[in-house]
Amino acid sequence: MSDVTRFLSEQEESHLEELKELLRIPSISALPAHKPDIGRAARWLAGFMDRIGLKEVRVMPTAGLPVVFGQWLEAPGAPTVLIYGHYDVQPVDPEHLWQTPPFDPAERDGKLYARGASDDKGQTFMHLKVIEAFLRTAGRLPVNVKVLIEGEEEIGSPSLGQFIADNRELLAADLVVVSDTSLWAPRVPAICYGLRGLAGLQIDVRGAAGDLHSGLYGGAAPNAVHALVQILASLRDAGGRIRVEGFYDGVRPVTVRERQAMEALGFDEADLMQQLAVDALPGEPGYSALERIWARPTLEVNGIWGGFQGEGSKTVIPAEAHAKITCRLVPDQDPQAIIAAIEAHVARHCPPGVRAQVVGHHTARPWLVEPNHAAVKVAAGALEQEYGRPPVFTRMGGSIPVVDTFATLLQLPVVLLGFGLPDENFHAPNEHFHLENFRAGMRVLCRYWRALAGVTAP
Amino acid sequence: MSDVTRFLSEQEESHLEELKELLRIPSISALPAHKPDIGRAARWLAGFMDRIGLKEVRVMPTAGLPVVFGQWLEAPGAPTVLIYGHYDVQPVDPEHLWQTPPFDPAERDGKLYARGASDDKGQTFMHLKVIEAFLRTAGRLPVNVKVLIEGEEEIGSPSLGQFIADNRELLAADLVVVSDTSLWAPRVPAICYGLRGLAGLQIDVRGAAGDLHSGLYGGAAPNAVHALVQILASLRDAGGRIRVEGFYDGVRPVTVRERQAMEALGFDEADLMQQLAVDALPGEPGYSALERIWARPTLEVNGIWGGFQGEGSKTVIPAEAHAKITCRLVPDQDPQAIIAAIEAHVARHCPPGVRAQVVGHHTARPWLVEPNHAAVKVAAGALEQEYGRPPVFTRMGGSIPVVDTFATLLQLPVVLLGFGLPDENFHAPNEHFHLENFRAGMRVLCRYWRALAGVTAP
Repeated sequence: MSDVTRFLSEQEESHLEELKELLRIPSISALPAHKPDIGRAARWLAGFMDRIGLKEVRVMPTAGLPVVFGQWLEAPGAPTVLIYGHYDVQPVDPEHLWQTPPFDPAERDGKLYARGASDDKGQTFMHLKVIEAFLRTAGRLPVNVKVLIEGEEEIGSPSLGQFIADNRELLAADLVVVSDTSLWAPRVPAICYGLRGLAGLQIDVRGAAGDLHSGLYGGAAPNAVHALVQILASLRDAGGRIRVEGFYDGVRPVTVRERQAMEALGFDEADLMQQLAVDALPGEPGYSALERIWARPTLEVNGIWGGFQGEGSKTVIPAEAHAKITCRLVPDQDPQAIIAAIEAHVARHCPPGVRAQVVGHHTARPWLVEPNHAAVKVAAGALEQEYGRPPVFTRMGGSIPVVDTFATLLQLPVVLLGFGLPDENFHAPNEHFHLENFRAGMRVLCRYWRALAGVTAP
Repeated sequence: MSDVTRFLSEQEESHLEELKELLRIPSISALPAHKPDIGRAARWLAGFMDRIGLKEVRVMPTAGLPVVFGQWLEAPGAPTVLIYGHYDVQPVDPEHLWQTPPFDPAERDGKLYARGASDDKGQTFMHLKVIEAFLRTAGRLPVNVKVLIEGEEEIGSPSLGQFIADNRELLAADLVVVSDTSLWAPRVPAICYGLRGLAGLQIDVRGAAGDLHSGLYGGAAPNAVHALVQILASLRDAGGRIRVEGFYDGVRPVTVRERQAMEALGFDEADLMQQLAVDALPGEPGYSALERIWARPTLEVNGIWGGFQGEGSKTVIPAEAHAKITCRLVPDQDPQAIIAAIEAHVARHCPPGVRAQVVGHHTARPWLVEPNHAAVKVAAGALEQEYGRPPVFTRMGGSIPVVDTFATLLQLPVVLLGFGLPDENFHAPNEHFHLENFRAGMRVLCRYWRALAGVTAP
């Protein structure tokens, strides 16, 4: 055991007490009433980062909530790692489902329960502790580090893109490491190498000047809901394949090797059906459920409304109908091109008597890092040493917009090296973090920084 | 000019003053706050009916709001006419669009403006005035009359069916006359001989146990909105023909004669398009817009909802989706059979991964009276004498449930003999009644009763 890991192990009790201090601050970014707590959490982190020996520590304003920054750049010739985390947390409702209060951290059965324990205060804190351990014991880190901790991740990082664009020089590095994801399963480490992107839009259909009496006009007047249903039905076939012309044009096919790797994960579709309480997992033919979630795009109606929605019935011909849609995109689909393709499709399929309009909402580009990139391979080695088996390479069906922002704006490889577990109730009541992975993860980071130092900075 | 029509003509000013008294009572059945006004209107009518010489006048309770009844049965050997009207009115909002207050009757340009002026206090009052005129001048009526005036027509006559079933003997008659419809156009009288029926239902689709994250599950989890869209799209083809098996089974075809008669009405589709502000009148191929509204059934989605409907976007896979549907039915479709057919269709077309349920709501049977029935022909003759041309025979796309109730429960022919005009703003601000038709209509009724007396009661 090195001095560094011995420090982490021997001081664990006091480290957890420090983490609990941070977890007690209810820094919920989605709720304006918690804005003072956001400020407290940022100041707490800045104080802590200063204390452990990071330099130039500061709370920096953005167009929204502040970020906390600090760095240590005294390893000439070694790579520079930009460590990203977030100190904001999800809301806690329904609060009555929590066994212990969300902002009163409690240890039970080797787990630490609190909002943010895993997502992402706990995982961010691990990075800071590893930095402290190196600086306290060896007086130096094997690599240069820059730490960027934001306060708006849980509301979609609306200000971070601009902040990064405005601070390219400050954030310049050789790679980005983000610990905000999970192992594949207990004792099975994972590196996530792909995220889906997003294209959100709304379809608005308008028919007559106002709602009409279905007796006086029914049979002759256009019905906006009928038209919307017809348009939406034209977007997908019954099997789930998207029928928008050009939709699949940019899709990078799933390689044979990827399919084999996904197959090898032994993903249990029956389990998923039971979990969702459904008797089928409908979707695009020719792909497993896991392939469809990770590596195939979707066009999902998130909401629909029009006409009368009250009790009983109202004999009305709706003049308006609306649908919200988000597409999950995969490399190399372009969100703007997808919105344009849907717009053209809707224009072609709009039935007579109504007008249909497509309004684009927010977008996020899909992201993929080459699993053979040196930064990824070194991380995989560190994981293997700790867990006794190589990590599985996973993708995620969701989007973490900031990952593509780092990749695109800073032109950096991003390594998603997470230590949570899939059942740790991220975003739900009784969020927790397995302390086993808190410990193991810090040892992985120690190994990663040491091994990275042996890799020549590009 | 007979004594009767002279009485009506000479006393017109005082008659209008009486009608205005009734119009000043805001007897809005839809608004519970106006329940006392409903009572006032019923008592006002009972007092008035008593004064003009009707017998056994009474306000009778129902399960809901009261009806007013009175009769005069001293014409042995002559037919008995059951006259139906309603004293309740529609709400008045938006009130600021009224040129003069809705319950402060005002005469302008030969029209009487007030809520209820035409629908239906004005038209009901005409019947009472004609009865008074006969009794004051001749001391007797040519026919026997029973007058039934209800207070719940504008909320769908929920209590009248039971009331009629409970009072079959009291209401026994040879025909029913209802004055609650319109001329075809100024100086073009009309008899409406058919009404569409109604079958209301709701489709509820349920997928997973709760809404799901579209990133984590999108591509594999069933989406209730997708399923509902697929089901709804299967109900109708793009041209507007209903694809539910058995839907058209009971439909009585439009006869060549009816088509010619409708064609002869010169219904202007371009006019309707302009009025609705649409550039097409989509519907079942092979029928004119008027044929589709009057004589063909519809399946109309009145409302739809599911998933996220707020500002911006929410990446959710909806677990539930719902649609409200009403079908307008034509003779001889059976509403319950239609609901059963749709239920079977939905069960057949429900995609995997979700459950769909059909819940039937209220129904109304379609109605048609034989235009050659003696009661109708005599009415047509009376209209022709007054207006100098025979009436056009029309149908209506809407439903007046009480008409079928009379036809079915009392086994009586119903004559819809209305004196409104299509542009008199029934149910809208600035409702009015052309006094020209107030006068002409009363003369028609005088002629109708006299002519009916010559027809042997069945």
